Amino acid sequence: MTLRHVACFAWNDDTGPADIRRVEAMLAALPEQIPEIRSYSFGRDVGIREGSLDFAVVADFDDAEGWRAYQQHPGHRAVLDEMLGLARQRVSVQYECDS
Amino acid sequence: MTLRHVACFAWNDDTGPADIRRVEAMLAALPEQIPEIRSYSFGRDVGIREGSLDFAVVADFDDAEGWRAYQQHPGHRAVLDEMLGLARQRVSVQYECDS
Repeated sequence: MTLRHVACFAWNDDTGPADIRRVEAMLAALPEQIPEIRSYSFGRDVGIREGSLDFAVVADFDDAEGWRAYQQHPGHRAVLDEMLGLARQRVSVQYECDS
Repeated sequence: MTLRHVACFAWNDDTGPADIRRVEAMLAALPEQIPEIRSYSFGRDVGIREGSLDFAVVADFDDAEGWRAYQQHPGHRAVLDEMLGLARQRVSVQYECDS
């Protein structure tokens, strides 16, 4: 089983490309900082569906303990603080799946 | 490149376990109905984070055309109608990533 973490963000109106590039650079550095991460992807919404939010992160862990290590890691906390400062909405789900 | 589709749902207060099982059975049947699906997972929030929504779907396609075939497929439209009838909130993001 995998514990999959999904998070979706909608940016504030004044969040700009430089803000997003800074966040992406911070996110890209997490997998080598946090050994509990089994798979990690993130990206900007491509604009093919009206009403979609702006950005998503999908992260896989072995279990809830791995997810907790990620949540508490200083590198993750720093980027999450950054993202919450740029976002007007954030939703997440944690679910178990195969793979 | 992969076009990854992420959708998160919060159920209505009167959505019950039988409703969710019906939705799960419909979702589980989609990969063999829709050849454009490259990877598919979904599940109920496990309750490890306060404020998380209730359910998520993550689906991978080769490109936006594959995603459109999924969106328009009658099997997907049937389950999405069902889910929207049970949900008070739905958000999604479509982004490009490796893998």
